[in-house]
Amino acid sequence: MPHSQVDLEGKSKVLVFGAGNFGSCLADHLADSLHEVYVWSRSENIVKILNSQHRNPEFLTDHVFPDGLKAVGPEFPSAALIQEMDVLLFAIPTEGVRSTLTELRPKLNDDDLPLMIFVNKGVELGTGALTLDIIADTCGPKIAKASTFISGPSFAKEIIRRQPTSVSVSSLSDDAAQRACKLFHQPWFRCYTGDDPVGVELAGALKNVYAIASGIANGLGFENNTRAMLITRGLAEMTRIGTAYGASPLTFLSLAGVGDLFLTCSSPTSRNYTVGYRLGKGEKLNYILETLGSVAEGVTTTKGLKELIDELGVTAPLAIAVYDVLYEGRDVAERAKELLSLPPIRELDLPLQGKPAQRLMKKLGLANE
Amino acid sequence: MPHSQVDLEGKSKVLVFGAGNFGSCLADHLADSLHEVYVWSRSENIVKILNSQHRNPEFLTDHVFPDGLKAVGPEFPSAALIQEMDVLLFAIPTEGVRSTLTELRPKLNDDDLPLMIFVNKGVELGTGALTLDIIADTCGPKIAKASTFISGPSFAKEIIRRQPTSVSVSSLSDDAAQRACKLFHQPWFRCYTGDDPVGVELAGALKNVYAIASGIANGLGFENNTRAMLITRGLAEMTRIGTAYGASPLTFLSLAGVGDLFLTCSSPTSRNYTVGYRLGKGEKLNYILETLGSVAEGVTTTKGLKELIDELGVTAPLAIAVYDVLYEGRDVAERAKELLSLPPIRELDLPLQGKPAQRLMKKLGLANE
Repeated sequence: MPHSQVDLEGKSKVLVFGAGNFGSCLADHLADSLHEVYVWSRSENIVKILNSQHRNPEFLTDHVFPDGLKAVGPEFPSAALIQEMDVLLFAIPTEGVRSTLTELRPKLNDDDLPLMIFVNKGVELGTGALTLDIIADTCGPKIAKASTFISGPSFAKEIIRRQPTSVSVSSLSDDAAQRACKLFHQPWFRCYTGDDPVGVELAGALKNVYAIASGIANGLGFENNTRAMLITRGLAEMTRIGTAYGASPLTFLSLAGVGDLFLTCSSPTSRNYTVGYRLGKGEKLNYILETLGSVAEGVTTTKGLKELIDELGVTAPLAIAVYDVLYEGRDVAERAKELLSLPPIRELDLPLQGKPAQRLMKKLGLANE
Repeated sequence: MPHSQVDLEGKSKVLVFGAGNFGSCLADHLADSLHEVYVWSRSENIVKILNSQHRNPEFLTDHVFPDGLKAVGPEFPSAALIQEMDVLLFAIPTEGVRSTLTELRPKLNDDDLPLMIFVNKGVELGTGALTLDIIADTCGPKIAKASTFISGPSFAKEIIRRQPTSVSVSSLSDDAAQRACKLFHQPWFRCYTGDDPVGVELAGALKNVYAIASGIANGLGFENNTRAMLITRGLAEMTRIGTAYGASPLTFLSLAGVGDLFLTCSSPTSRNYTVGYRLGKGEKLNYILETLGSVAEGVTTTKGLKELIDELGVTAPLAIAVYDVLYEGRDVAERAKELLSLPPIRELDLPLQGKPAQRLMKKLGLANE
């Protein structure tokens, strides 16, 4: 029986790529659900400390991980280990997906492919590619079509304490989505399946742009009414962009859509929100990025999004305003005033289907001619 | 030229029924926009103090109202005053709408009807009627069809300080919605028009049930992931109920839908949230209601909603759980555990059109046979 066909009500063998915040907490969750879990890290120190002390020295440092969790690395996992796995879970930044999959591809056994699950967010720098696109490029359409994406409002520090959390589990393959759901689902980690990975990926990337906008508003001294307005109009804008791209508008109503948007826009501790807040307070972007101490994906996503908006010809005044502040040196207060001065409009309008998703579906052999 | 046809780019004469929190702040906003504004209160003291000191002694007590704002009452406004108005704005509790409109109806000039705008939320006790239904009953379908509803994430205390706020402005008459939009719209009070007053009303009522759920979760010690889950799944549930009722699913994506839901569920100071929070902490409902000092509409809405859910036959596990805790004496922690133990499902599903809205549309002469 191929590994990918084993009864996932029982135990699965899972290899998690990446031992950051999110990779660690998902590995913890799966090991706690009695799956056999391996986590790969490029950091020799993380591998050593995880195996000897059941702690991650860099992320979620207060947490003691289950004894059964085994760390591997820093060398790339062997073909033998990979072919033993039922599930490969990728919890690495989007920028690392192409190289990781390129290295992985020759080690996969095509007659016994594992379930491949991705939890990274954001589009690839330079190419603007979604992860689904990167998978198709590096592993071919068959693997891409069965790849599954998990996204939703899920702070790692709360997952690790078994705070009730829900996520969207989306794949073009219903069978793959169901299997990922069975693997992860617990009363404290509820999985909701869907079939629009493009929408889930877009929502996960775009929300960071609106988190910057939400931070800016707060930095300018605006309060709850304004934040609720930004989240709602941001959601409408995301839905418009997503639908023009070819995603389903309903996906923006999902945990990966409005759920994650809401969490990110109302979390003063999130990096993107912080960038916005400091811009609102009058700090310069260069200084903020120099002193932030970590990457705010929304800043680069905004640049790619601007190109996408121009290409699709959709109306997205909030995203354009964030772009103008980040990349055109516009004054935040003045730009906010311009936004508020736009004439009143009808609230809800849905655009036609979009070309980029159609191109991607064609690549996957799923396009209707 | 009938009053309702005057150029609303210029000044309108507006009579606001109700000098509570929201009526006062909207009267203030309109007077500040140089409309000629009268506000009616049943409280002799409020009328006196508003006229003599430009302050409301009971609501928004720190605020100084514009000199031009004139209070009338405590007697019901005269036919002469009413017929002089371009706009009647009703900012009274839903329980008072039927008696107020019954008293008002004979004083209206049918050849020169004013624009009638409603900002109350919730369904009528006993009948379960929407305000649109009450208007049809008391004033007839012509007036109901041109009535306009304003709703959205809008704390009065922030509006009064000109914090940027956005609302949905919805009417079966596009002309009426456009005129209400022109009356209210300012850069700091942005209006978005729509044509689904049924959906706007349902969203405004139902959100309070989910605010109780959000409060319960926080009272039980759950944090941000759980709140985002409740808002998202609550939105899906509201959309399902609303669509089964006959409202447009898109309305639940509006400022009156997700915008207001988000604001209410994330405001620890809101009454409905507080009821839930105290239930989550283990207090008894009777004691909470005795000591709350004000009405939590969500508690009664939950009862009416239960009947509606049974009638429509829709799936609404969150609303039913709130009902079980409020009216069946169920233990909150145990009931929450049951909810979390429900099996995983597909995330997004839209029901067929519903009967209650079809009945209402028929009453308004708008039904398709």
